[in-house]
Parts: sequence; C-alpha cells; structure tokens
Amino acid sequence: CYISNCPIGGKRSIMDMEIRQCLPCGPRNRGQCFGTSICCGEEIGCYFGTSETLRCQKEVYLPSPCEPTGRLCGRNGGKCATSGTCCTAESCTVDPTCDTRTIFSSD
Amino acid sequence: CYISNCPIGGKRSIMDMEIRQCLPCGPRNRGQCFGTSICCGEEIGCYFGTSETLRCQKEVYLPSPCEPTGRLCGRNGGKCATSGTCCTAESCTVDPTCDTRTIFSSD
Repeated sequence: CYISNCPIGGKRSIMDMEIRQCLPCGPRNRGQCFGTSICCGEEIGCYFGTSETLRCQKEVYLPSPCEPTGRLCGRNGGKCATSGTCCTAESCTVDPTCDTRTIFSSD
Repeated sequence: CYISNCPIGGKRSIMDMEIRQCLPCGPRNRGQCFGTSICCGEEIGCYFGTSETLRCQKEVYLPSPCEPTGRLCGRNGGKCATSGTCCTAESCTVDPTCDTRTIFSSD
C-alpha cells in the first residue's frame, strides 16, 4: 500500500514493517508508482490516469507499506518525480527545485 | 500563451483578445495542453513532462491567450482534465468531483 494511505491497524501494524519501494510502472518499467493513478520516472516523465498507471492500482492490495524514492520537495511531503516535477500520492506540481541536476543527488 | 502566464502589456493587451482553446496534444491529438508540460484528455488521461507534452511548449510563443475547456474544480482555478483529475497550468490533483459522469457536462 502507499504509505500515506495504508489501512490502519490489523494483526501487524504497518509501523513495524519495512518500507519498500513502490511498484515499477510505465514504459519498460522505468517509472515507479507514486499513487494509484500516478506513474513517474526520471527518463519518462509522469503519467496521470493513463494506461501506464493501471498497474499502480495493484499497490493498494499489497499489505506492506511503500514509498517512492526521491528527494523531498513541496509542502505536502512530495518527492521529485521527474525533471521539474514534484509529486505526492495525489498530485504532481511543476517545481523548479526538482531540476534534473539535483533530482537524484540524494534521498 | 496560457492565460495565467501571458506576458503583460505590449501593443495590444491580451485582455482585448479573444480567448481560444489551448493547443491539441497527445495520442491522436485527443488531448489539450493545460500548461507547458501538461497534456490531458478525457480518453487519454494526463501526461506531465513526457514526450506527449513537448508540443505544449509552443503555446508560450503564441500571442493570443488560451484556456483549456472543462468544468471548474479545486481551489486554484483548475479544470477537470480527465476522469477524477483536476489540473491547472502548473499541477494536476486527484479530485473525485471530476468523475467521468460529470466532467464534460458543462463549462
């Protein structure tokens, strides 16, 4: 599940589970799911509610929490998703702080 | 130019010009440009910083102002761009008020 939307409680809290990277998606799997309808990658850009994002709906049914990799950006805990773009599980925004040179320099 | 980003002033104010629809884009031109890096269509979803949006950069050089068609949504003057998605010239956000049934029912 996407860490911001995982169901609370259950036999084992998601707080005890290891956080993994979200499902790969997009052309040649070069993107990662950011939310149920958002797939982004450094080389591919972001897809929002397109056929490339259908796979990202499956993440909801996986019990362990996932989080996309990338540098923090924006005001809502977003991460740099592709050049000049900051995404959360719910939105993508133009963000000059996510330019290509700095985007993957650190986590 | 995108109406929210048109250059101010000049020989003829953009306020005097007729607002047209923004450039078509995306697969089989079934989308419309929402901003320089955003292309969305009812049937195709939204593309954000992908090869499908390259064409949307040209809009900046057109003198007359453009605005995407669609129902108003969100808090920042966005418009419903595809099912469940509200976009401005700078961002796209998941928005249940933009579901498929109502999205193109009115302007």
